[in-house]
Amino acid sequence: MEPNSIQNEYFSSYEDLEVHRLMLEDNPRTLAYKNAIMNNKSYFKGKIVMDVGCGTGILSIFCAQAGAKKIYAVEASNVANLAREIVKENKFEDVIEVIHSYVEDVVLPDNIKVDAIISEWMGFYLLHEGMLDSVLIARDKFLKVNGEMFPESATIYISPCSVPTLYKKWDNFHGLSMTSVANQLRASKCNKPEIMVVEAEDIIGSDEVVLCWINLKEDIVSEVDSFSIEHVVGAKKDGIYQGLCLWFDVVFPDLTGSNDNVRLDTGPFSSPTHWKQTVIVLPQEQVVEVGDPIAFQMDMTRDASNRRRYNIQVSLLDPDEAEHPLPCTCHLTKCILVKAYMDQHPEKVPVTEQMDTNCLQEDPIDDD
Amino acid sequence: MEPNSIQNEYFSSYEDLEVHRLMLEDNPRTLAYKNAIMNNKSYFKGKIVMDVGCGTGILSIFCAQAGAKKIYAVEASNVANLAREIVKENKFEDVIEVIHSYVEDVVLPDNIKVDAIISEWMGFYLLHEGMLDSVLIARDKFLKVNGEMFPESATIYISPCSVPTLYKKWDNFHGLSMTSVANQLRASKCNKPEIMVVEAEDIIGSDEVVLCWINLKEDIVSEVDSFSIEHVVGAKKDGIYQGLCLWFDVVFPDLTGSNDNVRLDTGPFSSPTHWKQTVIVLPQEQVVEVGDPIAFQMDMTRDASNRRRYNIQVSLLDPDEAEHPLPCTCHLTKCILVKAYMDQHPEKVPVTEQMDTNCLQEDPIDDD
Repeated sequence: MEPNSIQNEYFSSYEDLEVHRLMLEDNPRTLAYKNAIMNNKSYFKGKIVMDVGCGTGILSIFCAQAGAKKIYAVEASNVANLAREIVKENKFEDVIEVIHSYVEDVVLPDNIKVDAIISEWMGFYLLHEGMLDSVLIARDKFLKVNGEMFPESATIYISPCSVPTLYKKWDNFHGLSMTSVANQLRASKCNKPEIMVVEAEDIIGSDEVVLCWINLKEDIVSEVDSFSIEHVVGAKKDGIYQGLCLWFDVVFPDLTGSNDNVRLDTGPFSSPTHWKQTVIVLPQEQVVEVGDPIAFQMDMTRDASNRRRYNIQVSLLDPDEAEHPLPCTCHLTKCILVKAYMDQHPEKVPVTEQMDTNCLQEDPIDDD
Repeated sequence: MEPNSIQNEYFSSYEDLEVHRLMLEDNPRTLAYKNAIMNNKSYFKGKIVMDVGCGTGILSIFCAQAGAKKIYAVEASNVANLAREIVKENKFEDVIEVIHSYVEDVVLPDNIKVDAIISEWMGFYLLHEGMLDSVLIARDKFLKVNGEMFPESATIYISPCSVPTLYKKWDNFHGLSMTSVANQLRASKCNKPEIMVVEAEDIIGSDEVVLCWINLKEDIVSEVDSFSIEHVVGAKKDGIYQGLCLWFDVVFPDLTGSNDNVRLDTGPFSSPTHWKQTVIVLPQEQVVEVGDPIAFQMDMTRDASNRRRYNIQVSLLDPDEAEHPLPCTCHLTKCILVKAYMDQHPEKVPVTEQMDTNCLQEDPIDDD
């Protein structure tokens, strides 16, 4: 077989190759993993690691450079063959074993268990086309008790936002009115979440609201089947509420004791990544003034016919009827008074459960 | 019919809509046309104009704003319906007539002729998937004798270049060697021109070489069927010769007498546009030092089965055997002497025919 035809087998399409390139060239992504591994060199030394969905193998090589004694780099696609070449090129073929297989089918010699699992499994808005299930299955099958997960947690955030590129920008476009173009663009985006860059200044909500927090060390597959939140947030400035912006971050363990966890944040206030942000564009825009309560419900549920996809449903709620969080950033008198009281008496603030459950509902009302 | 289904008819696909958005949001492009029109306000006042392939109609509206009395905005795709809406939205429905048709099929009332034709017809490397033929046909059919073409000329340039994103970048990628990835990327790009951004610093040739110059007022369709050039250029710095970079510019008429022509330049030394640059990646890289002669032949020929596509063929020539231009920027003794002589005796410099022919070959040897 010609070298070229071998090479072409690695990727099922040109687009496939470009996706790997895009991921490698996403510096915040690649550097977060590199730093998370290199900061924990003392931990990795002599350890056994599994890399789930290793792609080109770059994370496995970082682990080898950090001193891991053995890395099982599992990749289901033909890119596994390219990973083998790259491992060889970096002279780690004695340390890294590339396994061309679905991780679900892998059997390790002597049913060995691994000290840590590393994986870059995140999709758009964290879960889209994601491979989190495979990572959790690999954890239950291969990770030692008290083994480490890289990353160890992931959070999806939501905030009301403006989308000027789909609205205002076209009102006066080089001196003419192009609202018909804006209408077209919005019509094309109403039925599916839009992957786009949201500027920090276009975030309207005064708080990032957590849709879900996933504990990679403990959560089971059925716990990531659906997430739901009903929330009220105050507008932090005057603006036009045109969509709900979703983004995520993941946090890596810090095993050096210095509590300096590497965090890869794909939100509008951080360096741009290939994940950009995800916007649910509303059918109607709504003018809001600073302090106005914005109430919504969001449900994210795994698609019944394709478990790799999620359906997202947004309902706009009447702020007068919705239950406000404690404290709430909106300007309703009740919320202002409650917030002032809680600011003065921090010892009486109810314990938030935001970081302890997957499925966030309103914080429980505190009778205090 | 629902408003939404009417809207969706405008575009055959979501990608189609995004292409129009990309073009509109390409500021150097949109502003070049706007400036070319507005700088010639005194010319446009009271004139009849045809816009060939009007898309969303933005150029027609610029002409109307500049005072044209009638504009025929011709668009073959369903985007014509959107153009009609945008024209109405800007209150020019009495001035601009959107004609939903191939321009070849258009019949104007009383076989009227137009004073000027405006068109944004350029594709990647100017001619790819281009619609220049339709523009030239429209000119012959509808333009008055001595009418104006916006733009009036177009030039394709070539220069040897480096392509570090396909080579050097991967030699040390975040501390590891990924030349296998670079090999993959290059293998995927060997069979077709690569549309990509080339940084100014990666241009190696000391001169921009003109592959072809097209006179929109005079050239006929058969004259744009093929272009060919054989050239030698000196390297302007030490570097690695890895590809031939193609780009183009178009020039608009200045009818105010101030000789201040607007030029839309898509080259690596100008602001980026959606056309980026086009690179023919060479199968083998070649180290060059400043002054080294780089000799190549490039042929660009219309595809026999699809007239909207061109095949590009590059041959690397032996600089010792190729004919060098007069003057030549390479460091061969003969060329240095000839250039020194010509610099000292500018009156004896042969008249270059670069801007007078479509099909550039070597300048004729001057017997002077």
